[in-house]
Amino acid sequence: MNITEYMQSVGQRARVASRAMARADSATRNRALLLIADAIVRDAPLLRAANQLDLDAARASGLAPAMLERLALSESAINTMVEGLRQIVSLSDPIGEISNLKYRPSGIQVGQMRVPLGVIGIIYESRPNVTVDAAGLCIKSGNATILRGGSEAIHCNRALAKIVAEGLLGAGLPTDGVQVVDTTDRAAVGALITMPQYVDVIVPRGGKGLIARLIDEATVPMIKHLDGICHVYIDAKAEIAKALAIAFNAKCQRYGTCNTMETLLVARAIAPAVLPQLVALYATKEVELRADPEAFALLAGYPHLVAATDEDWSTEYLGPILAIKTVENMDEAIDHINTWSSKHTDAIITEDYSAAMRFLREVDSASVMINASTRFADGFEYGLGAEIGISNDKLHARGPVGLEGLTSLKYVVFGHGEIRN
Amino acid sequence: MNITEYMQSVGQRARVASRAMARADSATRNRALLLIADAIVRDAPLLRAANQLDLDAARASGLAPAMLERLALSESAINTMVEGLRQIVSLSDPIGEISNLKYRPSGIQVGQMRVPLGVIGIIYESRPNVTVDAAGLCIKSGNATILRGGSEAIHCNRALAKIVAEGLLGAGLPTDGVQVVDTTDRAAVGALITMPQYVDVIVPRGGKGLIARLIDEATVPMIKHLDGICHVYIDAKAEIAKALAIAFNAKCQRYGTCNTMETLLVARAIAPAVLPQLVALYATKEVELRADPEAFALLAGYPHLVAATDEDWSTEYLGPILAIKTVENMDEAIDHINTWSSKHTDAIITEDYSAAMRFLREVDSASVMINASTRFADGFEYGLGAEIGISNDKLHARGPVGLEGLTSLKYVVFGHGEIRN
Repeated sequence: MNITEYMQSVGQRARVASRAMARADSATRNRALLLIADAIVRDAPLLRAANQLDLDAARASGLAPAMLERLALSESAINTMVEGLRQIVSLSDPIGEISNLKYRPSGIQVGQMRVPLGVIGIIYESRPNVTVDAAGLCIKSGNATILRGGSEAIHCNRALAKIVAEGLLGAGLPTDGVQVVDTTDRAAVGALITMPQYVDVIVPRGGKGLIARLIDEATVPMIKHLDGICHVYIDAKAEIAKALAIAFNAKCQRYGTCNTMETLLVARAIAPAVLPQLVALYATKEVELRADPEAFALLAGYPHLVAATDEDWSTEYLGPILAIKTVENMDEAIDHINTWSSKHTDAIITEDYSAAMRFLREVDSASVMINASTRFADGFEYGLGAEIGISNDKLHARGPVGLEGLTSLKYVVFGHGEIRN
Repeated sequence: MNITEYMQSVGQRARVASRAMARADSATRNRALLLIADAIVRDAPLLRAANQLDLDAARASGLAPAMLERLALSESAINTMVEGLRQIVSLSDPIGEISNLKYRPSGIQVGQMRVPLGVIGIIYESRPNVTVDAAGLCIKSGNATILRGGSEAIHCNRALAKIVAEGLLGAGLPTDGVQVVDTTDRAAVGALITMPQYVDVIVPRGGKGLIARLIDEATVPMIKHLDGICHVYIDAKAEIAKALAIAFNAKCQRYGTCNTMETLLVARAIAPAVLPQLVALYATKEVELRADPEAFALLAGYPHLVAATDEDWSTEYLGPILAIKTVENMDEAIDHINTWSSKHTDAIITEDYSAAMRFLREVDSASVMINASTRFADGFEYGLGAEIGISNDKLHARGPVGLEGLTSLKYVVFGHGEIRN
């Protein structure tokens, strides 16, 4: 069978299964999740053996050590998957909630009901635990899902697919409710992202290369972000202790995450008071600083100091590098952010009420923070219970996306025989 | 200047203006709307003269009478525009509302703030009142907008553009906040729908041909619907009086609207009791009935009876024609709807509680109704105050779209110096 036909058949079956998934009550969907969790515990040795096949093949083909690490399914990674499923069970069901139900003068009652999106395609790379996490979120939110993992994880993903199918079956749900694409052919991705008739939304989880390709080629809408160029702005009225703690944490707590600060903006009036102390912290991590001329002058003598170019304002370093820019005031900071930010997460450090309120309103990003580290931009930290990804798009989902981001609202009307005049 | 350059410049200026529009407080935006309303009243003779130029040119070029009617700006149409603006002023401001604000264990407070989308492009046909209605909704929701009206209304739209600019200026808002595309070249549409860097969303208001073209060519997301193939399902437990009133109203109150019923589904058990009476009503309007074999047999003798083909289940007649199908039960009705419906609006007529609740949940359409006419699917009837269009898409806006549909939510975080461990 050719790949296009295979993927069409996967899509068609997902569309059919999506109706049963949407119809299933909360208890049934939770039962499936618990059965999957139990089967993972039972089959842990099998899963680790399948993972070993993947690891051996990956090592033989010379996969980079960082990729090998992501591919590895350790005992603790298995426990985390199981724990994750049980946590999803404990979350309340987003489906069926009716909000804003009101009587209208005509006599009808109108409200909005939260419903599943339908079929969700998830495209990810080597980490096999995504298979279970994503399946769990989609089952809980009443969606059918098509999972396309990295080819290097195919053995492990096949083993997980069997377990998920067993759980669905045990709960009386169609096994087509979660399908793992069973081919390593890359054409499967191209097919998946161009079947709007079968797939309602694509969630890509992977590097910038993957996402840039999908933005070009996909005809199915996506929940995605491309960059995380996050800013912290230290306002003239910032409390210095907070500024130091947050600017250090936002850069150095983890370098490779999308909510890590990449550019620090500092108000001219406070720069001499805050930058030398802050830089002493960065020195402990040997963070390279790319500074505009003013900050450069203030930081003279710092061993890892480089003159910034315009390119630095639009670069996601994902490493121990930070761009620093001095601004006259908050207006200049907001202008810089709305021009260069990837609209992911931006924070202000200030004790000035009016500045804080203006920053909150005027910065056009998915998360805007006052006096907190950008590293908090995360589904778990926001209390969403679980996270399928982060969206920088203004339409539909925006910011960390949990169960609700996998749903839509439809209007419902309760009438008593009303007709329109 | 060539069209692409012109549209790029329009887009760029809209993007810059969008920041000032988003920043403006409620009073400023309302002031602009009231100034526009007053200027329309003052300039009514000028507007009618400009409209007369358009009408003369349209008549000379042989425009169809129905189109001429839509192009005409009568005194009462002018009054309705003014009234509409004043109603928009009286609606509460959707912008800045923060919902779900909660403390998290880390100490941060997380909520979601409603913010403008940014720049909204609106593409419409001959009706000049859309210029003012759309500008009004976009100003109220803090968005910049680019309006591309039909070429046959260019004189009137230019006159309206002047008035809108005067109102913006008078309120201290940038005149680029609302731009009317000042060319009749059709390439302007092609440019507008492929500038995602300047335009956040397109709202097409026009015929199916326009929308089908935009779906093919647009790279900017759209708030749109293509078809309105709406169903009424008369359940076995329907109250016959309600079924008659609703099925007649849903078809015959207006034929050309997207929320008009195009297919009637009838449960086999109730068909003999309800169809003959219903058909007596349709006879008064000479509605052509395209019936499946069972209904055909029941309706033998009706003068406008035709055997239905599969094509009838997917046709939006927009006229006095109705497809009728007999089904065994609600499952068959839901299957038919989820297969053939355009996911716009579908209604069940029933007194059976469980059937009603299942229909509500399982029909995957933007509006789902119990015991009410599909004709109610409308922003005014739903209490949205104003309507920019109707969306059949599941992502973002769905159903009648008012002010809120022109907004997005961003997460806001209030911290007290928290950093992430």
